[in-house]
Amino acid sequence: MRFGDGVEQAIHSVVMLSALSADAALPAAALAEFHGVSPSYLLKHLQSLVGAGLLVSLSGPAGGYRLARPAEKISVLDIVLAIEGREPAFRCAEIRRRGPDPLPGVPTMPCEINAVMLRAERAWRSELAEVSVAAIAAQVAAHDQDGRVAARRCAFLDRRERRPAARATLMQGEAK
Amino acid sequence: MRFGDGVEQAIHSVVMLSALSADAALPAAALAEFHGVSPSYLLKHLQSLVGAGLLVSLSGPAGGYRLARPAEKISVLDIVLAIEGREPAFRCAEIRRRGPDPLPGVPTMPCEINAVMLRAERAWRSELAEVSVAAIAAQVAAHDQDGRVAARRCAFLDRRERRPAARATLMQGEAK
Repeated sequence: MRFGDGVEQAIHSVVMLSALSADAALPAAALAEFHGVSPSYLLKHLQSLVGAGLLVSLSGPAGGYRLARPAEKISVLDIVLAIEGREPAFRCAEIRRRGPDPLPGVPTMPCEINAVMLRAERAWRSELAEVSVAAIAAQVAAHDQDGRVAARRCAFLDRRERRPAARATLMQGEAK
Repeated sequence: MRFGDGVEQAIHSVVMLSALSADAALPAAALAEFHGVSPSYLLKHLQSLVGAGLLVSLSGPAGGYRLARPAEKISVLDIVLAIEGREPAFRCAEIRRRGPDPLPGVPTMPCEINAVMLRAERAWRSELAEVSVAAIAAQVAAHDQDGRVAARRCAFLDRRERRPAARATLMQGEAK
């Protein structure tokens, strides 16, 4: 069992978007460049995050992505389920009901194996549900003692984020 | 993220083998028949369980599989890791170190995202490690109020399990 690379890319992207200036947006190409990943592959995952209501996508030349709600209200679990799907990892095929001489209508109680696997899935989800994107950003900041991680990100966002003023100017330019 | 069908088949097979008479063995074909699954596919998983030291495989016409240690000493986690591999589901590709202008040697602290994902993996594993094959068998028995599940299994094992006496007789027959 293994997560696709999309999970790591999506979590890093959402953490990055939590550092945007108010009302700014960041194009998918910039997110892909910053993380050194395939833009087309990342785009697919960003669209899954939009579909799950975690990001909003602003179209147009000054468009891009930004968070759909505060970083405190987006958990790591929200992101993982948006990318990997909401179904549990273990899906019971009820093989206990197969084979020769199956007992009709029996057993009707839940399969104990399925119950154990779902209990573990709940424990796993519960850990991820407790950690917000804001908490991850705070941890990264706490470990960034000389400020170099933040400085690198800020320099990149200064160049690449699209701010409402720029967007408004562009829109006026388009209207002319 | 999804487990392969092998996990369900392997857990059911090990629970079934925990019901064998002392020193008896059960052929892979019988396990496949009882669970209504592909024998060749199941065989691959049984071999993984042998490789992980959970089952022993006895060769010869009276051979088959049996537990390598008491059912109390085999956890659901042991089985899942034998089938799916021991690596965590989330594998950090360190994408934070990529992109333009990477900070050399920084960050050196563990990635917070990786840490969160590994914490969740530990919670998941911990749940599965706490449940033994013996505990699952006991739960199934507790729910089997009219004894029909046990009766079906016993009737099948009576026909298909290979007991040491039969094996000894066969070996004598082979030696003649």
